[in-house]
Amino acid sequence: METDTIAAISTPVGEGGISVIRISGPEAVPVADRIYRGKKSLKDVPTHTVHYGHIVDPAFNEPVDEVLVTVMRKPRTFTREDVVEISCHGGIVPVQKTLELLLDHGARLAEPGEFTKRAFLNGRIDLSQAEAVMDLIRAKTDSAAKVALSQHEGRLSRLIHRLRNEILEILAHLAVNVDYPEYDAEQMTAQLLRERSGHIARELERLLETARQGKIYREGIKTVIVGRPNVGKSSLMNALTHENKAIVTEIPGTTRDVIEEYVNVRGIPLHLLDTAGIRETEDIIERIGVERSHQALAQADLVLLLLNYAEPLIDADRDLLSLVRKYTSIVIVNKTDLPRRINLEEVRRLIGEIPMIMTSLKKEQGIDELEDTLVSLFQLGKVELADETYVSNVRHIHLIRKALESVREVIRGIDAGVPLDMVEIDLKNAWESLGEVIGEAVSEDLIDQIFSQFCLGK
Amino acid sequence: METDTIAAISTPVGEGGISVIRISGPEAVPVADRIYRGKKSLKDVPTHTVHYGHIVDPAFNEPVDEVLVTVMRKPRTFTREDVVEISCHGGIVPVQKTLELLLDHGARLAEPGEFTKRAFLNGRIDLSQAEAVMDLIRAKTDSAAKVALSQHEGRLSRLIHRLRNEILEILAHLAVNVDYPEYDAEQMTAQLLRERSGHIARELERLLETARQGKIYREGIKTVIVGRPNVGKSSLMNALTHENKAIVTEIPGTTRDVIEEYVNVRGIPLHLLDTAGIRETEDIIERIGVERSHQALAQADLVLLLLNYAEPLIDADRDLLSLVRKYTSIVIVNKTDLPRRINLEEVRRLIGEIPMIMTSLKKEQGIDELEDTLVSLFQLGKVELADETYVSNVRHIHLIRKALESVREVIRGIDAGVPLDMVEIDLKNAWESLGEVIGEAVSEDLIDQIFSQFCLGK
Repeated sequence: METDTIAAISTPVGEGGISVIRISGPEAVPVADRIYRGKKSLKDVPTHTVHYGHIVDPAFNEPVDEVLVTVMRKPRTFTREDVVEISCHGGIVPVQKTLELLLDHGARLAEPGEFTKRAFLNGRIDLSQAEAVMDLIRAKTDSAAKVALSQHEGRLSRLIHRLRNEILEILAHLAVNVDYPEYDAEQMTAQLLRERSGHIARELERLLETARQGKIYREGIKTVIVGRPNVGKSSLMNALTHENKAIVTEIPGTTRDVIEEYVNVRGIPLHLLDTAGIRETEDIIERIGVERSHQALAQADLVLLLLNYAEPLIDADRDLLSLVRKYTSIVIVNKTDLPRRINLEEVRRLIGEIPMIMTSLKKEQGIDELEDTLVSLFQLGKVELADETYVSNVRHIHLIRKALESVREVIRGIDAGVPLDMVEIDLKNAWESLGEVIGEAVSEDLIDQIFSQFCLGK
Repeated sequence: METDTIAAISTPVGEGGISVIRISGPEAVPVADRIYRGKKSLKDVPTHTVHYGHIVDPAFNEPVDEVLVTVMRKPRTFTREDVVEISCHGGIVPVQKTLELLLDHGARLAEPGEFTKRAFLNGRIDLSQAEAVMDLIRAKTDSAAKVALSQHEGRLSRLIHRLRNEILEILAHLAVNVDYPEYDAEQMTAQLLRERSGHIARELERLLETARQGKIYREGIKTVIVGRPNVGKSSLMNALTHENKAIVTEIPGTTRDVIEEYVNVRGIPLHLLDTAGIRETEDIIERIGVERSHQALAQADLVLLLLNYAEPLIDADRDLLSLVRKYTSIVIVNKTDLPRRINLEEVRRLIGEIPMIMTSLKKEQGIDELEDTLVSLFQLGKVELADETYVSNVRHIHLIRKALESVREVIRGIDAGVPLDMVEIDLKNAWESLGEVIGEAVSEDLIDQIFSQFCLGK
């Protein structure tokens, strides 16, 4: 396969100590060498070594930046091609200028995800491993990163390979049986076929059971805090973020008002939504109205409703209480340091099975109980990757479901006495669906689409 | 000097293909080795080589990230200490976790600028070169980057060294003359001293003359576009940014509404202020009122006032015209594609010496003339670093002015017949002021203050 040489800035854009440009392809070393001035030509240096020098615009003999250049020759590289990494001083202008010079001297600007795509096309990693690279980059919590890394290391791939091999074995037996009905080596009886399919179905079901947790690890539990003004929403937010390690992300390029906060509560990644709004106005319901609160709640995995221990229920509280009954929620009755004026029986009647806890956020009381409730609600603890393979990617979940459906079709077919060569088609479908998870028999369009979601320079 | 081992994330924070952690100090290699698992121990690898492996939390034997680790042993490193760079997948979580592990295993979190500070303290670069590193990172235009790189390469330092040596020679002669008045080797006559001081003064004056241009290269020409609604402010903005290469920066961490745009017009870096405001409302004056416009204009180096060729002047225009007379401005009469209804003689009378040009931004006419006017107004072209040393740093400008003042005092003293040993003090002051530019005889507090303005990880 003919490939060209690609280059891109691989570090996030901004002011920092270091910016790195990555170049990959057959001409990576000569292209970089054309704009590099150092002790030695890059063509003459050993692989996996680092060299000090300058990037120079050859047209004007003008220095552009002082750099460290790393030369890594194939095959022991990220893409399995020759790779050069140029480490510039971390400003915007010198690194842009260096990239432009590379593009002027034989490299092409890499598309988003193109380096990882080459690692996939050159067989260093399969598709699910490649997708895990992006999950790793986007991970907001330790658990998400662990799930992604384990997938990148090939854990899911190995399981998929094993299941596909089992299907292949059955198919081989079936082929013998169907093509040579007189052949007597091993008769694949319908009974044996049914047993083996049942086993595969159970493994797929088990994998899908991890999907909910996998998705939570990956995306966090989308959490909305609601309640009347001054009931302690900000205090709750602070209690959650200060006690635990929080990552605040402002999403660049999109709506600049969206601030997301990720908090790790005993291994449970809470993804606190619209915290800016709560922080700034302290009255989300008043501001956006009950109707729009509905919309805000609809996208939440968890609603934390705060009530005031020291005030009687009012209709706004009752509205919220009837609202949150439709969601996975926890009712938090705050301000127990003050005299009680709330009617707790009425609250209990209104919320039904929803857990209720009492807190005095001011006195830091009740937070442990809240965390206990969270743990039991989501039945998650520390991710134990040693004994579980998590599937978290929506594409993978969809394909595994499809495979499971095909395998179930096999079982239904056998039970209905369908001829074995008809059943074979469903088994093949299952084998192909699982193949798509790891990128076998995947169309070029799909590959392009998957990698285009990557960030530039990866 | 006893030093510890420091570590920090050296790439901008965000999602990218690569994040780099830099470690520097006597324990850099063993600290990194404690959390690295690869083919070889990092302690056994040659200097300036790159190694594939994993970062592992030794307490749980849990993998954290797949990495490339570069080992660079002193003295050929950025800090002149042992340096290790860990290149992680570019996410926030794995790189944070890796940094935490390093801090748990013997490294200390680096202060902002501490790597560069060590390069300075270990004598690899002087203070003006260190300061240029930050200018390079913050550079918004090619010219700014060139000035910074040339300063980083020691151009200013060499000039300062030469001037200090000249002063030292004079001081040596003076010492001979003052201490041994009977000594007859070479009598430093007042006349000769005056000549030499005059020469140094002229060189310092010449250097200060570059300061305005240097400052402009460094910071850009702060430009404000004003005019009534619909007169074409957005079109002008677009004409300037689309024709030329623009860098848009959103300043992270500070006011999220400030968007700055840098445009390079024939080598002149325009720094367009409050472009978000102009883009969104199209009527800065109406929005913020004439009074506050005054404040906006006060911080500008250049005001571009747009008038409508197709409409008669109204009082709002006249207000703006009388306002911009106090600033360096260009009046742009736009929409010449429509029939004229403006009274150009009145405009001419109101603006006095201010240049006026006619444009039809819609038909892309007059933009060349605007650029010509900009060039002649700021008398800047392409930066020719071959024949000029630019001083752009405010601290340097202040010190060079101080040195010049001292040298002038010498000349005044000689002319007034002051005894030579009195004159000597002023010469010493000049020598010391210049020394401070390159970091000689600079207090520790000042050094701390200078480096604390650096970004983290540099």
